[in-house]
Amino acid sequence: MAANTWGELFRVTTFGESHGAAIGAVVDGCPPGLELSEADIQPFLDRRKPGQNRFTTARREADSVKILSGVFEGKTTGTPIGLLIENTDQRSKDYGDIKDKFRPGHADYTYAHKYGVRDYRGGGRSSARETAMRVAAGAIAQKYLVEKFGIKFHAGVVQIGPHCTDPGQPDFAWQHVASDPLFCPDRTMSEAAQEYLKQLLKDGDSVGARVRLEVTGVPVGLGEPVFDRLDADLAKALMSINAVKAVSIGDGFAVAGQRGSEHRDALTPKGFASNHAGGVLGGISSGQPIIAEVAFKPTSSITIAGETIDIRGETSSIVTRGRHDPCVGIRGVPVVEAMAALVIMDHWLRQRAQNGDVHACVPNIEL
Amino acid sequence: MAANTWGELFRVTTFGESHGAAIGAVVDGCPPGLELSEADIQPFLDRRKPGQNRFTTARREADSVKILSGVFEGKTTGTPIGLLIENTDQRSKDYGDIKDKFRPGHADYTYAHKYGVRDYRGGGRSSARETAMRVAAGAIAQKYLVEKFGIKFHAGVVQIGPHCTDPGQPDFAWQHVASDPLFCPDRTMSEAAQEYLKQLLKDGDSVGARVRLEVTGVPVGLGEPVFDRLDADLAKALMSINAVKAVSIGDGFAVAGQRGSEHRDALTPKGFASNHAGGVLGGISSGQPIIAEVAFKPTSSITIAGETIDIRGETSSIVTRGRHDPCVGIRGVPVVEAMAALVIMDHWLRQRAQNGDVHACVPNIEL
Amino acid sequence: MAANTWGELFRVTTFGESHGAAIGAVVDGCPPGLELSEADIQPFLDRRKPGQNRFTTARREADSVKILSGVFEGKTTGTPIGLLIENTDQRSKDYGDIKDKFRPGHADYTYAHKYGVRDYRGGGRSSARETAMRVAAGAIAQKYLVEKFGIKFHAGVVQIGPHCTDPGQPDFAWQHVASDPLFCPDRTMSEAAQEYLKQLLKDGDSVGARVRLEVTGVPVGLGEPVFDRLDADLAKALMSINAVKAVSIGDGFAVAGQRGSEHRDALTPKGFASNHAGGVLGGISSGQPIIAEVAFKPTSSITIAGETIDIRGETSSIVTRGRHDPCVGIRGVPVVEAMAALVIMDHWLRQRAQNGDVHACVPNIEL
Amino acid sequence: MAANTWGELFRVTTFGESHGAAIGAVVDGCPPGLELSEADIQPFLDRRKPGQNRFTTARREADSVKILSGVFEGKTTGTPIGLLIENTDQRSKDYGDIKDKFRPGHADYTYAHKYGVRDYRGGGRSSARETAMRVAAGAIAQKYLVEKFGIKFHAGVVQIGPHCTDPGQPDFAWQHVASDPLFCPDRTMSEAAQEYLKQLLKDGDSVGARVRLEVTGVPVGLGEPVFDRLDADLAKALMSINAVKAVSIGDGFAVAGQRGSEHRDALTPKGFASNHAGGVLGGISSGQPIIAEVAFKPTSSITIAGETIDIRGETSSIVTRGRHDPCVGIRGVPVVEAMAALVIMDHWLRQRAQNGDVHACVPNIEL
Repeated sequence: MAANTWGELFRVTTFGESHGAAIGAVVDGCPPGLELSEADIQPFLDRRKPGQNRFTTARREADSVKILSGVFEGKTTGTPIGLLIENTDQRSKDYGDIKDKFRPGHADYTYAHKYGVRDYRGGGRSSARETAMRVAAGAIAQKYLVEKFGIKFHAGVVQIGPHCTDPGQPDFAWQHVASDPLFCPDRTMSEAAQEYLKQLLKDGDSVGARVRLEVTGVPVGLGEPVFDRLDADLAKALMSINAVKAVSIGDGFAVAGQRGSEHRDALTPKGFASNHAGGVLGGISSGQPIIAEVAFKPTSSITIAGETIDIRGETSSIVTRGRHDPCVGIRGVPVVEAMAALVIMDHWLRQRAQNGDVHACVPNIEL
Repeated sequence: MAANTWGELFRVTTFGESHGAAIGAVVDGCPPGLELSEADIQPFLDRRKPGQNRFTTARREADSVKILSGVFEGKTTGTPIGLLIENTDQRSKDYGDIKDKFRPGHADYTYAHKYGVRDYRGGGRSSARETAMRVAAGAIAQKYLVEKFGIKFHAGVVQIGPHCTDPGQPDFAWQHVASDPLFCPDRTMSEAAQEYLKQLLKDGDSVGARVRLEVTGVPVGLGEPVFDRLDADLAKALMSINAVKAVSIGDGFAVAGQRGSEHRDALTPKGFASNHAGGVLGGISSGQPIIAEVAFKPTSSITIAGETIDIRGETSSIVTRGRHDPCVGIRGVPVVEAMAALVIMDHWLRQRAQNGDVHACVPNIEL
Repeated sequence: MAANTWGELFRVTTFGESHGAAIGAVVDGCPPGLELSEADIQPFLDRRKPGQNRFTTARREADSVKILSGVFEGKTTGTPIGLLIENTDQRSKDYGDIKDKFRPGHADYTYAHKYGVRDYRGGGRSSARETAMRVAAGAIAQKYLVEKFGIKFHAGVVQIGPHCTDPGQPDFAWQHVASDPLFCPDRTMSEAAQEYLKQLLKDGDSVGARVRLEVTGVPVGLGEPVFDRLDADLAKALMSINAVKAVSIGDGFAVAGQRGSEHRDALTPKGFASNHAGGVLGGISSGQPIIAEVAFKPTSSITIAGETIDIRGETSSIVTRGRHDPCVGIRGVPVVEAMAALVIMDHWLRQRAQNGDVHACVPNIEL
Repeated sequence: MAANTWGELFRVTTFGESHGAAIGAVVDGCPPGLELSEADIQPFLDRRKPGQNRFTTARREADSVKILSGVFEGKTTGTPIGLLIENTDQRSKDYGDIKDKFRPGHADYTYAHKYGVRDYRGGGRSSARETAMRVAAGAIAQKYLVEKFGIKFHAGVVQIGPHCTDPGQPDFAWQHVASDPLFCPDRTMSEAAQEYLKQLLKDGDSVGARVRLEVTGVPVGLGEPVFDRLDADLAKALMSINAVKAVSIGDGFAVAGQRGSEHRDALTPKGFASNHAGGVLGGISSGQPIIAEVAFKPTSSITIAGETIDIRGETSSIVTRGRHDPCVGIRGVPVVEAMAALVIMDHWLRQRAQNGDVHACVPNIEL
């Protein structure tokens, strides 16, 4: 039972609380011989690091990762890779006043009931801080996958409150994400959303977001029917990210309104004629780009007073001071890429176990 | 690596192909002392059984389940429960003509590439026939959960093509599902959808559907952060059902447009004031009803000719004769309930393992 | 938690009680393309089948296995292989008189306390009958391993009570096992042991046995440090066989008396100079023959009255009528081979997952 | 696939190499509310710490453990417990000369073939240094088990080369172990063995050892048939310890020579009349003391030159300088206790999952 472990063959176990001494991860099952150093991982962590701009929490964390094991003379050895990030900026006093109250929309209430005790400092284990280790582990998977198959992961914010975009829009371009303060692939949407967020900050409120993922270069044949389908594991991986409330593959919820003659992707000698399926058929990758979208709820940590109860069950009111993101979906972008990488890495190893290397050579059919 | 096994503590392993000798399942980890017989499981299977009405495939399967082990003198013994259903109505000749072609929208292409061989008869392992064993195993979980906690599972079709409903509609009532030919909780929507399906059958086409799930009576504290969150496992369980392309919890994708002040559910001494979260906070059940929705794609098996390629990669055209549902989402309803039951059963045992029985006694807070 | 499942990648799940309707297994993870039919499995089952000679239980079971899924047109498809054996000769009345008593040396007492209920007919799930499915699953693994690597499994009885042998004895020869009624590789020992067993049958008593295993052709590199070492998994696999009380690798307990200068196996350009290690170094196969020994306890089902208590805790006496082996170790031989095959098959797939096919090509160094 | 993880519900994942920056572990699944601090773990580490006396390696390691997560205000929270020990005394130059040679009896050869690369410094991951984290994790399990059930773990060296003892000996007393330099329960044997070891050190040789384990206070009902039997998991746990080559339960290999009338333990209203079974029946704990023995091979790191080959396959000779134990079995004692604690802890949680707390209350029957 691996509550804090992801994966069957490429296994990532994370530990650590928001305001503990450190957070860390153990990556078990990484193939040997992969060139790896902290410098390969740090850039991924820097992307999700807090304090990057006015739209992310002011909390300052160096988030500098250390590799404690599994790498020798610059290469992975096949033994578990220990990763550690020390927590440096912990202002626990920010949280003392909520020690005895359950913040609405947070895990305080459920953790208290489940475990009988809870580390109330910044949400403890339930803090999104844990996702830093997912990003660190995902960076290793992404490095392996790009070197082995040329697999590329693109994720970006395609909706913030009333502002949204899609690949059909004139200004939509994945390469824009890297330089955009909102990790948005559409400059026009981004500018409108930034104005919206400035007002939101004045209001002391927060907003949700929708993130789109596209993965290219995935070979045909990844995914294990019937339960461990590639899309099923992807759904779990993405839904396991803090604040995510919905996951879709390909056309997603729109398929409920489609006809079979409209949805099915025709096959031609040159490849598929369309990609309504989102790159997965019968739970197995088809060689087309894998397309998914996820919805992030607005953070409940806002400065607008909220009605709640205290641990004695008495009515109370709460204002979350602390330092928080007005839109947690923004920093969720690298986490979405990381989880997708962990899923695909794990399934590649599973495919190789049962079917051998040869099947990985199947030409990746795309238009 | 349990591709054909669901669960950590309440483990269900299924096997069998659409046109093989039989399909079966092994349920491992069921607590001893549960009164159980075939009569407790059969009604659940009868709900998803084909040939129930004009809107489901004409294939006739008795789908009568046999318990081969794990039950002694009418009670479970704690040893694995073997379940078997023999395939009786297999018209393999229906499939001979597609032996060398990949049906668009089906798993033919991906299975062929992944495994190098495939059982083309009715989709073999990729056929939704496999879900019969999920329903059989889910029936055991549902019996345990209703007796232990009074947990109730409600699922129903809330959208078919252009026709949809929601709990706010005047005719929406869960009790209507049992008697409705489309497993729809809204008579008005059902009648309109039935007219729509009749025309669809004439056209030889199919359509997608959206199914809503509500689970009541779930105790507080089920779910294992950080990866095995209750909602994450629910997302995987539902996405693993054939034809499902999207899963949402609570307000789902709508949260991308919400503000924190609007989304967070206030806590009062009498319970939560709303349920935008859908019964899960931080991946742990809150005691509120668990609410989820899933989208089923339209089946690709239609009598309208489709463009495809054969195993030599040459262009071809295909018409799926066989016998199929115009809307697979309808018969997906009992499968959705079954998978939800497997997830909750598994997490209840995990909760008991780490926290003991006492935590299950936490009063179930609801408005 | 897979109490009734063996393996990580080549997974075998068994079910069924001694006197239930049937026993069965699901083999999940078998590579596709392996030629397989019942005829490949049956001979292995026939070896352990009861009623073969005067030294094994008189119970008559056809033990004819059926493949229910996972094989199409004579080849495995990569989907789970369902195996079933119907129980034909069940004389439950033999057991009615022990319904309320705990047979000493049996699992009656522990099952009753653990589960609160127990299927007392022939020991129910605790009966060695379950091992028939291990042999069936092991047969599939052995077929794959001999075809892929030429791996050969040799097991035989090397001790029965006071009579024993070892590879140094003049009459010791593995090929003798197949034709020997005691599965003994040494004709001289076998004849003496047969006389001993005849007297034992007259006495209504039973005796223990020691079984030796040698596996040749295993490539270098199988085994996953640190916990899933090849020898550790072998130890678990063998200790999980009914009645086994001890497992040793290579020189086994004798190493406690050895010096380092005597134990370590020197390496030469032509290979290892000796094999005190038993083919495993650091938990990884060395390419030498894997050598293990196991001890089977004498069955407690004998006709000599034994002191015990009934379910009310009152003192009582019991005589096991039923039909039993005087030496269960004999029929344990094919089970030992089967479990070794499951371990090696699983580790081969794990090796391929992490290190790819290439590492399997490492020349197998042997003297 | 959890090569570096032990357990299903009480999961311990270890990482780290002998001469890396640090070694660590993540303990996932520990019940919340257990009082825990470094001071509870350190004494267990100090027992196996090198440099304790002339009979253990001169390597000096503070081995001071840090708890990085999972504990808040002195109590476990139910979230993963991160443990870290920094490596302080690494003399890598000791190993430079064996960089290109395979030490006979070590894992150098198998690691090199399996992974293609190896950290040759002190054996890297294959070093027994890894067992420090097993002891740290085991300390947590032991604290929980003694507080919950009063379970006590006794292990001691009962054989070193030609010198041995057993519980029947006049000087045999478990309480002697704590003060004995060889962790031997028999002063007479210890004194003789110490003289033997002094000579061995002069010879630059090493010797094997046999360690006996007795666990008292284990409730009836722990263990999961059929594969995850308590004795099977114990066998794997103990065989997974570096240098262990054999494991026995109860009478062990002696059962091969016993008769059923002699072996079976009679049940009386006051409990079992004997314990040939070693506290396990049908893979489930009987409530009697659990008795096991393991054999440790002599370390191959000795100053007597050994024949070997280098990485080019050419013949060579090697002398292990480094700093090593003449008898690794001595420091194996706390590791044996730790692994037994991990097995029992895991099975207790598994028992509670399936059967609930009530079954833990079953009176623990002992003479």
